Amino acid sequence: MPLLVQKYGGTSVGTPERIHHVAERIVRTRRAGTELIVVVSAMADTTDDLLELAGKVSGNSHPRELDMLLTAGERISMALVAMAVNDRGQEAVSFTGSQSGIVTDTSHTRAKILEVKADRIREELKRGRVVIVAGFQGVSRDREVTTLGRGGSDTTAVALAAALGAEACEIYTDVDGVYTADPRIVPNARKLAELSYDEMLELASLGAKVLHNRSVEIARRFRVPIHVRSSFNWNEGSRIRKGDLMEQVVIRGIAYDAEVAKIALLGVPDRPGVAAEIFREVGGHGVNVRMIVQASGADSKNDVTFAVGSHDVRTVLPIVEEVRKRLGARAFVYDPDVAILSVVGEGLATSAGTAGEVFAALAEAGVNIEIISTSSITITCIVRKTDAERAIRSLHDALRLEQEA
Amino acid sequence: MPLLVQKYGGTSVGTPERIHHVAERIVRTRRAGTELIVVVSAMADTTDDLLELAGKVSGNSHPRELDMLLTAGERISMALVAMAVNDRGQEAVSFTGSQSGIVTDTSHTRAKILEVKADRIREELKRGRVVIVAGFQGVSRDREVTTLGRGGSDTTAVALAAALGAEACEIYTDVDGVYTADPRIVPNARKLAELSYDEMLELASLGAKVLHNRSVEIARRFRVPIHVRSSFNWNEGSRIRKGDLMEQVVIRGIAYDAEVAKIALLGVPDRPGVAAEIFREVGGHGVNVRMIVQASGADSKNDVTFAVGSHDVRTVLPIVEEVRKRLGARAFVYDPDVAILSVVGEGLATSAGTAGEVFAALAEAGVNIEIISTSSITITCIVRKTDAERAIRSLHDALRLEQEA
Repeated sequence: MPLLVQKYGGTSVGTPERIHHVAERIVRTRRAGTELIVVVSAMADTTDDLLELAGKVSGNSHPRELDMLLTAGERISMALVAMAVNDRGQEAVSFTGSQSGIVTDTSHTRAKILEVKADRIREELKRGRVVIVAGFQGVSRDREVTTLGRGGSDTTAVALAAALGAEACEIYTDVDGVYTADPRIVPNARKLAELSYDEMLELASLGAKVLHNRSVEIARRFRVPIHVRSSFNWNEGSRIRKGDLMEQVVIRGIAYDAEVAKIALLGVPDRPGVAAEIFREVGGHGVNVRMIVQASGADSKNDVTFAVGSHDVRTVLPIVEEVRKRLGARAFVYDPDVAILSVVGEGLATSAGTAGEVFAALAEAGVNIEIISTSSITITCIVRKTDAERAIRSLHDALRLEQEA
Repeated sequence: MPLLVQKYGGTSVGTPERIHHVAERIVRTRRAGTELIVVVSAMADTTDDLLELAGKVSGNSHPRELDMLLTAGERISMALVAMAVNDRGQEAVSFTGSQSGIVTDTSHTRAKILEVKADRIREELKRGRVVIVAGFQGVSRDREVTTLGRGGSDTTAVALAAALGAEACEIYTDVDGVYTADPRIVPNARKLAELSYDEMLELASLGAKVLHNRSVEIARRFRVPIHVRSSFNWNEGSRIRKGDLMEQVVIRGIAYDAEVAKIALLGVPDRPGVAAEIFREVGGHGVNVRMIVQASGADSKNDVTFAVGSHDVRTVLPIVEEVRKRLGARAFVYDPDVAILSVVGEGLATSAGTAGEVFAALAEAGVNIEIISTSSITITCIVRKTDAERAIRSLHDALRLEQEA
C-alpha cells in the first residue's frame, strides 16, 4: 500500500468542527487505500495563548521551559484528532515528537532534525492504524523536549515523508495552492499546477507564505514530492517536485514581501573577508538576511546593501553599527519603507530577454528600482513600499502570468 | 543536605500571580538549605477545559488519547513554575512524568505506579537544581503516556518522596491542615497537629478532601512523613506519620460525606461467595464502594447494604439489577438522601465506651442511625442527609474535639 503524509496547520484544526472535518478527510483518504501519517500543528491561537501566559510569568528567556510549554499545544490537537478519527471506525493513534522518533540537536526553540527513528510509526502503520504526529516538536539525544521553530510542522511532515519513503507529502493550508502572485494583490493570479523545489524555495523565502523553506529544502534533498492544497475542498493544489525543464523559460510567479527593511553600509573597504565579517556577525544572531548586493565604487570602497525582515530590525541595527565602526565604513543607511519583489522561474538565467521585460514593465508603471539582484532562477528588486502592489500587477500583466505557460 | 518533596495543587498554581507566589516559596525553602523536588498539578480549570474540548470532539471513551490530552495540563504549569523559579536566581528544571521516571502499568486514565526510576532527578538535584515534576502522569513500559487518575498529583509526590528517601512530603492545599471536622459545619473544629496514616486514610476516604487515600497508602507503606499545609501562609499544618499510641484512645475527628447513595440488596441467599460476586462486579467497573454491611436474617436470606459516591450511581444501578437477578435476591433499595459520618481515632476498637458516647450523642440530637459499621479505628454511621450536619456538631461537642486530647 502506498504511504502518504498529510500535514494540517493550526487553522485546519482550530475548532472541534474543523477537527471533525479533518478527521473525515483522513478517513476518506485512508479508505481510498493508502497508509497514512498525519502531522498536526497546535490549534490556532493555542501557541499565542501559551506565549502570553509565559509573558505574564516571566519577562526572561527560558528556551528549555518554553519548549516544554509550547509542546502542550500539539499534544492537545493530536489527541483530539485521534479521537475523532477513531470515532469514525478507523483506528488511529497519536504520537508526540519524541514518540515519533524525531531526534533533534539541542538548540531549544529552533532545533534541527538530526534523524528520524520511525520504528514505532512503522509498527502502528503495519497494524493498519493512522498515525497522528505532533508537528513542530522533537527530542534531543539527551532526552530533552525541543521545538523546531518557524515552519516546524511542515518540516516534521516532510522529514517523516523522507524517512519513511512516502509517495508524497500533502501540506494543507487555507489557500488551495501556490499562485503566480498574491491573489489579494493580483486578482487574476493563476494557481500553479506544478513547480520545482528551487522555484518554491524562492517563492517561500520571499514571502509566499504557503510553505516554509526548511521543509522545501528537505524535500529537495530527499526528492519528496509535495502537494500543497486546501483542507476546505478536494481541488488539486500545487505539486512541487524535481524540475524537468530543458531549456524553456517558464516564469512561475512573483514573490513579494513588504515586511522588510533595507540596510546599506556605505564606504566599506574593498578587501577580502569584509562581506564575511558583516554577515557572519548578523547571521550569528539568528537573523535571516534576504538579499545581499555589493557594488564596487571607484575609490576602492564598496557599498554593501542587504534586506532583513522587519521583526529583525531591533536585533540588527546595533550589530550593524558595531560592524561599521570595526570596518571603518563611512556610514550606514536604514530604510524601512521598502519592499522586495522577485520574479521566479527556472531558466531565467539563460534568458536575457526576460530581465529586460521585467525592468521595462516596472519603468512603464513608474516604479523606481532601487536595487537589483539576480540568480539563476530569480530577478529580485527592491522598490518603495508604496510602489510595490502597482509593480506586481504591472509585472503580472507584462509577463502574461494569468495564462498557462 | 536533606531532601524535601513539595506538591502544589491546581488552585495554588491557578494564575500567573499565584505561580509567582509558589516560586517565592520554593526559592525560600531551597535557600533554607534543603534539596527540593516540586510536584505540580495542572492550573485550575485547565483539566476541565480540556475535558470540555474532548467532549465537543467525541462522545466516546478514548483512554489513551485522553491521557495524551490531559497531560498537556501539567506540562504548562510545570514549565511556568520553572521559569518563575529560574527568574529568582535559583536554577530549576521541569520534568514530565516520563522524564521523572514514573513508570506505571498500562491502565490509561487510572494507571498505577510500578516503580520510580529517578536517575535524571538525582542528577539534577546533584547539580543544585530544583526539579519541577508534572504530577498525575507517568509512562508505561511500552512507552505510552498514562495518567494516575484521581489524587494523581499527591500520589506522584509521595511516590517520589518514597523512592528518593525524602525527609518529608509537603502537600500544599487551600486549607492549612486536617481538622477534627469540616470547619464550615463545625466552627470550633480544631486543626490536628498530627495523626497516623490509618487515621488519615479513614478521614480521606470518608470525605476530608485534603489528601487522596492512594497517596496516604504509599506513604504508610514506605513510612514517608506527610505535612499537609497551606500555600497561603507559613503556619505549621498537620503532620501524618506512623502512629505511636500505646493504649490511649484518641479521637482524631469526624469525617463526613453527603455525596453518597445507599444501595441495599434485599433477600440475598446466605451462601459463600455471594458478597464476592456482588462486589467483584461493582468494583470491576471502577466504582469505589464506601461501606459494606451485611445483616443475616433468620430465613437464610441476608440484606447487603453498601454506599457509593453519587457520581457512580449511573454506573452502579444497572450492575446491581443484573446481580440481583443472577443471585435471585428479592429486591433492591436505592436511597440517594443519605450521608456517611465516621468518627476516627486509633484505639477506638478497644474502647467500648466511645461507641456508646457516639450513639448517645446522636440519639440526643434526634438523629436516627440507619446503618452502623465499625473498624478498629472508626465508627461509621449512615444517617439521613438532612440530619448530617446536626449530627456532626452534636458529636463534636459530645466528644469534646475542640479540646486538645
